[in-house]
Amino acid sequence: MKVDLNSDMGESYGAWAMGDDEALMPHITSANIACGWHAGDPQVMRRTVTFAKACGVRIGAHPGYPDLLGFGRRPMQLSSGETRDYLLYQIGALAAFVHAEGLRPQHVKPHGALYNAAAKDRSLSHEIAEAVAEADPRLILVGPPESELVRAGQQAGLKVAREGFGDRAYNEDGSLIARRLPGALLTDPDAVADQVLMMMEGKVRTITGKTIAIAVDTICLHGDTPGAAAIARRLRERMAVARVAAVPLGELIVG
Amino acid sequence: MKVDLNSDMGESYGAWAMGDDEALMPHITSANIACGWHAGDPQVMRRTVTFAKACGVRIGAHPGYPDLLGFGRRPMQLSSGETRDYLLYQIGALAAFVHAEGLRPQHVKPHGALYNAAAKDRSLSHEIAEAVAEADPRLILVGPPESELVRAGQQAGLKVAREGFGDRAYNEDGSLIARRLPGALLTDPDAVADQVLMMMEGKVRTITGKTIAIAVDTICLHGDTPGAAAIARRLRERMAVARVAAVPLGELIVG
Amino acid sequence: MKVDLNSDMGESYGAWAMGDDEALMPHITSANIACGWHAGDPQVMRRTVTFAKACGVRIGAHPGYPDLLGFGRRPMQLSSGETRDYLLYQIGALAAFVHAEGLRPQHVKPHGALYNAAAKDRSLSHEIAEAVAEADPRLILVGPPESELVRAGQQAGLKVAREGFGDRAYNEDGSLIARRLPGALLTDPDAVADQVLMMMEGKVRTITGKTIAIAVDTICLHGDTPGAAAIARRLRERMAVARVAAVPLGELIVG
Amino acid sequence: MKVDLNSDMGESYGAWAMGDDEALMPHITSANIACGWHAGDPQVMRRTVTFAKACGVRIGAHPGYPDLLGFGRRPMQLSSGETRDYLLYQIGALAAFVHAEGLRPQHVKPHGALYNAAAKDRSLSHEIAEAVAEADPRLILVGPPESELVRAGQQAGLKVAREGFGDRAYNEDGSLIARRLPGALLTDPDAVADQVLMMMEGKVRTITGKTIAIAVDTICLHGDTPGAAAIARRLRERMAVARVAAVPLGELIVG
Repeated sequence: MKVDLNSDMGESYGAWAMGDDEALMPHITSANIACGWHAGDPQVMRRTVTFAKACGVRIGAHPGYPDLLGFGRRPMQLSSGETRDYLLYQIGALAAFVHAEGLRPQHVKPHGALYNAAAKDRSLSHEIAEAVAEADPRLILVGPPESELVRAGQQAGLKVAREGFGDRAYNEDGSLIARRLPGALLTDPDAVADQVLMMMEGKVRTITGKTIAIAVDTICLHGDTPGAAAIARRLRERMAVARVAAVPLGELIVG
Repeated sequence: MKVDLNSDMGESYGAWAMGDDEALMPHITSANIACGWHAGDPQVMRRTVTFAKACGVRIGAHPGYPDLLGFGRRPMQLSSGETRDYLLYQIGALAAFVHAEGLRPQHVKPHGALYNAAAKDRSLSHEIAEAVAEADPRLILVGPPESELVRAGQQAGLKVAREGFGDRAYNEDGSLIARRLPGALLTDPDAVADQVLMMMEGKVRTITGKTIAIAVDTICLHGDTPGAAAIARRLRERMAVARVAAVPLGELIVG
Repeated sequence: MKVDLNSDMGESYGAWAMGDDEALMPHITSANIACGWHAGDPQVMRRTVTFAKACGVRIGAHPGYPDLLGFGRRPMQLSSGETRDYLLYQIGALAAFVHAEGLRPQHVKPHGALYNAAAKDRSLSHEIAEAVAEADPRLILVGPPESELVRAGQQAGLKVAREGFGDRAYNEDGSLIARRLPGALLTDPDAVADQVLMMMEGKVRTITGKTIAIAVDTICLHGDTPGAAAIARRLRERMAVARVAAVPLGELIVG
Repeated sequence: MKVDLNSDMGESYGAWAMGDDEALMPHITSANIACGWHAGDPQVMRRTVTFAKACGVRIGAHPGYPDLLGFGRRPMQLSSGETRDYLLYQIGALAAFVHAEGLRPQHVKPHGALYNAAAKDRSLSHEIAEAVAEADPRLILVGPPESELVRAGQQAGLKVAREGFGDRAYNEDGSLIARRLPGALLTDPDAVADQVLMMMEGKVRTITGKTIAIAVDTICLHGDTPGAAAIARRLRERMAVARVAAVPLGELIVG
């Protein structure tokens, strides 16, 4: 069995640091790199791309809303066509740094409020898929299982990857418990490993104790979860024991 | 004889319009398109790329300082490496829109205060040339004749183009009369045509009446010069009579 | 009979011009001046404040969402407390320019998507009213008649002004026809004057031909309506004939 | 003997934290609060103002260049009048939060590259002094001893305060050792206390070992110096022993 492990990276901005990319990068297989609109800047992007390459981690774009002040976490209602062009811009900017390292971007995962909105909004998802296809039809589009985003990607002829969350608790409908609610975050390394290994069998236990079906290709580990690197290390150990290989999306999704 | 005619395009931003791209585009051969840092936004970039393509005009990036409020016209003293990364970001972002139209960017011309600073600043020019080479070594770097920018481009192995200004008056040292001074702007179509045709013979008459040597590959026509389209039309007529062909940089500079 | 005439002013930004403040300012009694977040910048703010003073026009703040790229016209879902602080910031910034001219701001009118959202959103409106009261409890809060915004202002102990639109068509429920729909904009000077004078009698004719009740203290004239200055001039003539005086809000609303 | 202790505060931005205001605030007498242009945002401003008030610390504005990406540390060459208006805007925005707490701002200290430029640039300093005087002629302008900034403040009729640095090494000409050079930063609490107490006697020992004259009214403690809070605590102990009182600028400079 195989799964990709992804994490959001390069979220520092100018003089402000965020996350602990150095501790987490060695444990993942795909890095989602911020593109300067909700986080990240050109120097952070270059540094993060270079570091991902050094760690053998595949690189994807993590584009977001034009909202630095809100870190791309606030819903914005854009007009038709705006999202498509904003994403193409951001994907292109990141691609320049990836190409400068002699590599190709592997995937695109929308960030924050844009990701959440796209999960349920068909026309928004089509704009996103269109931008990805314009940028490079070989890119893999990452979204929630059963989402409009994944469907839009498939309809656009893109390879898609379904994402599960190792360190977040689930509702019975397969959505995530809101980050502010108690129990939303799994911080015990073995609890995370349990959840991921269960996902490998197509299931997840919800916060209510019920078991629901879920099919995922990639597991997101959040760099800002307390003890993120320790969680990742433990997960990799448990995956090794269970003979689940960590493999970058590009090798997993061969469409 | 051949020369390229270039103009700065796509300088609107969000709800704010600037320039009259529609009137001027049909008369030029190369468009320098703003990349969102001093002007332009993703929707403006897409629209301008599409329109340039429709007019058969070649496309270049027109990257600038991170200064929307000052339109990139204010000198900024960046730290080492920042300019390189800022330019790679902007060139990559524009390239995505150009590629989406099935084209390749032809050139890069730094904007405003960055262009002026690079003319005289060797290390800044090397950063710019490095960014251009990283983005695509086939890109042509545009700068003032005899400038550090052009030299840095050559040293980086890039093709370079030397730029003259059709609608601006010159000092005896080959620099431009500051925009605010009287006589800085040539607005009479025939005066512009005279200056361009004289440049084709390797000369320009300075504001003091002296004739100095100048060697140029491309002529910049400013979209915000009063009567810009009329000037361009008259110039093309005079060029036709004088058997000077307007040819995009990519066909002129074969390096 | 008396009414205030207001208009959105100071919406240029850096090198980009917008509107024709010079033509319209002499005809109005209250200016809503952008505060740099969706439009306007410190130099535009100073210039607009000075010009309003020279025309004897009272000054208000026109704060908006942090969305320069979208001109504050795109709905954003901010977190609790953010709107309050964003508004206090903007009102304070504008007030500094007004105080520097020896004047006091008269009113606050939220801009664009924020105005529209506040009309129906009670908690958002309370945040806005709180910011206005914090900035200066003598400020008049401007909002749509019967709106949550006006109610929140009253509950916060503020004076409020109900706004009607002279150059926009109305739905039967008292809302405005969306700007993009045909017939949304009234551009005939006499049609605008008819609508304003009818509002003075507490009524407006909807786009369907029905007459509904409306009570307004101030009439908004849009600077970007084609022929805005001519409309304003005609309106003032018609108001004079009908003995409706144009009076700034501060003299009209004495709470 | 008396001296003010100031520190730059409120330099977080959106999701990004910076500094350790909570640890340092209790030890100082004046807080310079960022105004959103190089750092800070409206929510950070409110929180910092409230916390300063709770600690009995006086509040000043810390305005900077429009350069969030560069944290206001990069020299920018603005046009005439721009600095004045940018500062009035920022001072006004901060003042709104201070007034909302029932307080008045005490001082203005330009930030970063603007502070450094103003030290030597007469016309820039006059713009700054003009903005401060427009905002409130009772405000104290903080600048380096013997600087153009302090002179411009005096000429504008403002009270001024001369600033020394407790945790930075000095050149023989009274300027600071560039932050990147070895020995630029004093991190030993007693070394900082020694330097401050020596300044109270009108002297400072330069990095070369020479003693030069310096006259200061306020000592800056940097929150990002390693061990900043411990340094401040030790300094306060040593000041108590030496009978040097820490007193806010507003009580010290009675002009």
